[in-house]
Amino acid sequence: MKSLLLVAHGSRRAESNAEITVVAKSLSDRVHGNYAQTGYAFLELAQPSIADGIDELVNNGATEIIILPYFLSAGRHVHEDVPEIVNLKQKEYSDVKLHIAPYIGEAAEMIDVLVATSEAEN
Amino acid sequence: MKSLLLVAHGSRRAESNAEITVVAKSLSDRVHGNYAQTGYAFLELAQPSIADGIDELVNNGATEIIILPYFLSAGRHVHEDVPEIVNLKQKEYSDVKLHIAPYIGEAAEMIDVLVATSEAEN
Repeated sequence: MKSLLLVAHGSRRAESNAEITVVAKSLSDRVHGNYAQTGYAFLELAQPSIADGIDELVNNGATEIIILPYFLSAGRHVHEDVPEIVNLKQKEYSDVKLHIAPYIGEAAEMIDVLVATSEAEN
Repeated sequence: MKSLLLVAHGSRRAESNAEITVVAKSLSDRVHGNYAQTGYAFLELAQPSIADGIDELVNNGATEIIILPYFLSAGRHVHEDVPEIVNLKQKEYSDVKLHIAPYIGEAAEMIDVLVATSEAEN
């Protein structure tokens, strides 16, 4: 069962973390034909953790999990922290395929979103 | 002269900051009909600072600056740190209009980027 895990940084602001749950819900609605379940998790400052998010998807039957990093640039979090946690979980779940997708800032469409936002202000 | 300032978090990784300069260049190319100049700046960990970025645009003739926060969620940085710096600069430049655009994570199109990325992995 193919599953998706949206991974965000996490914030001390509850409202900020709540935004991610809304994004994950919208994403789930849009991709449910391709992914049986879509979860969300936070790198730090909020719950569930990435490890907990992976656990939950596996407990619900995931056999493959695409981890989608909701980060704009490839800093330490994208290059080191997220892969480190995912690698540890991969060792724990040797029969589940874990794969990290490109971080969202790398998507070619990001520039379109910036252009649209700047045009709306013009 | 209307100008745009892309504001990112900043990273200890030079490659991550370099990504922002590339994004700013692409953005500049796309919006130059609406904005005479497009700059970039970092909240922390990298240069130029937001204050320096505003200074440079003003020195080059900006009379209005739209600050575009390249942040995915409205944490402390978006709600407090960026506005605080911009407000201080607004007091310094009373004849320049400074305006903060919605942060990029608030754009409706963000969900499309997530869907596209998750579909590419499917």
